Amino acid sequence: MPTQTDHIVKSFDQELEALRRLVVQMGGFAESQLEAAITCVTRRDGELAGRVMRRDADLDEYERQIDAAVVRILALRQPMATDLREVLATLRIASDLERIGDYAANIAKRSLALAQVAAVRPTTGLPRMGRLVQQIIKDVLDAYGERDLEKALAAWREDETVDDLYTSLFRETLTYMMEDPRNITPCTHLLFIAKNVERIGDHATNIAETIHFLITGRTITDARPKGDTSSFVVVSPGDETQAKEE
Amino acid sequence: MPTQTDHIVKSFDQELEALRRLVVQMGGFAESQLEAAITCVTRRDGELAGRVMRRDADLDEYERQIDAAVVRILALRQPMATDLREVLATLRIASDLERIGDYAANIAKRSLALAQVAAVRPTTGLPRMGRLVQQIIKDVLDAYGERDLEKALAAWREDETVDDLYTSLFRETLTYMMEDPRNITPCTHLLFIAKNVERIGDHATNIAETIHFLITGRTITDARPKGDTSSFVVVSPGDETQAKEE
Repeated sequence: MPTQTDHIVKSFDQELEALRRLVVQMGGFAESQLEAAITCVTRRDGELAGRVMRRDADLDEYERQIDAAVVRILALRQPMATDLREVLATLRIASDLERIGDYAANIAKRSLALAQVAAVRPTTGLPRMGRLVQQIIKDVLDAYGERDLEKALAAWREDETVDDLYTSLFRETLTYMMEDPRNITPCTHLLFIAKNVERIGDHATNIAETIHFLITGRTITDARPKGDTSSFVVVSPGDETQAKEE
Repeated sequence: MPTQTDHIVKSFDQELEALRRLVVQMGGFAESQLEAAITCVTRRDGELAGRVMRRDADLDEYERQIDAAVVRILALRQPMATDLREVLATLRIASDLERIGDYAANIAKRSLALAQVAAVRPTTGLPRMGRLVQQIIKDVLDAYGERDLEKALAAWREDETVDDLYTSLFRETLTYMMEDPRNITPCTHLLFIAKNVERIGDHATNIAETIHFLITGRTITDARPKGDTSSFVVVSPGDETQAKEE
């Protein structure tokens, strides 16, 4: 049983190791929240949605624990150089994971609004995006655990595919809205759900950048892949067929 | 002219003071970016939009400077207790301000897509939301500069009004989309713009929470006001008149 003076007898390396494990655990939990949230959308499972929303509090608690551990280490160990970088990196990663959880909870919440309205078609693109983003989170967590720079960079680049998927989903969904006004409400929620998945991808990318900094001591200098061009998308009534074929 | 050993001769208090000033400056800049972004939307000013998008790099640079200053202070000064809390709080605040800037740049970007399509009506709600969020950022920065807990909490509570404005804008915009399919593309961009403003409000709220922690050493225990109920909104064709009157 741990005692109050436990952190004093533990070695610094052990403390860092415990912190790392906490981050990896939190990451696995965030990833499972995303997976469950996408299932809420595809299966319209209201009960699961409630569970995902409630479990978001656990991610907040993980972040609080990590923050507290970091403050304790900074105060008691006063780490320098690489160790300092490592400790500060965990703060950043925990914050990105916490945001990933928020977006997953919001996806679950919106799936409840979707469940109230008639089924809409364009849901195959969404699970595909979801699976890809889940894989990126997995890879990024592996890269963190194994200090694997190449894996982190590969995951970082993969985010461009997510952005492309999002942009075509955006375009396609607008055309469904134009075809039938009854599609407007569900499709709007779908658009925000897809945007949430895209944002989760961005946070996974942030984590990859933090890992890059952690390993190399430098920030990524390549321009970050920016594939989400949906902000520029204009679809007009009559474009439907063309847009769907693109 | 500062020399390389400048940080050694400067007192710790002076370093903290310089860090605080940098945060306040960054905050003022983020606030001006939001203001300009909203102007892009209301005036469809493409040139200004380009400027807002380019200036976002300045906010990233502010964050890098703050991060570097924090790492330097942690490594050289090894602050304890309140000072440590202060230093870590600036990291968090800078990260929220950087996100605020990202959302402002995205608003400017989307205003370009809006400019390509016919004018849409529901733009009065948006500047109102924008002004309110700008005021919250201002208040939160004042609260930070003056260590004013009451002001921080007042700003924190004000975010609920932003969420209410957003939810009614969301509902109203859906009805415009149902009235005329030509409204669908511009209204979708407007919805995302409004969502960005709402998210900026959330980040301002985060800053208020960081100030609370900074001053009291405790996290806010009240449930955070969650007024954005738009995730549950369902509007059906035929609801138009009713929704607009709500």
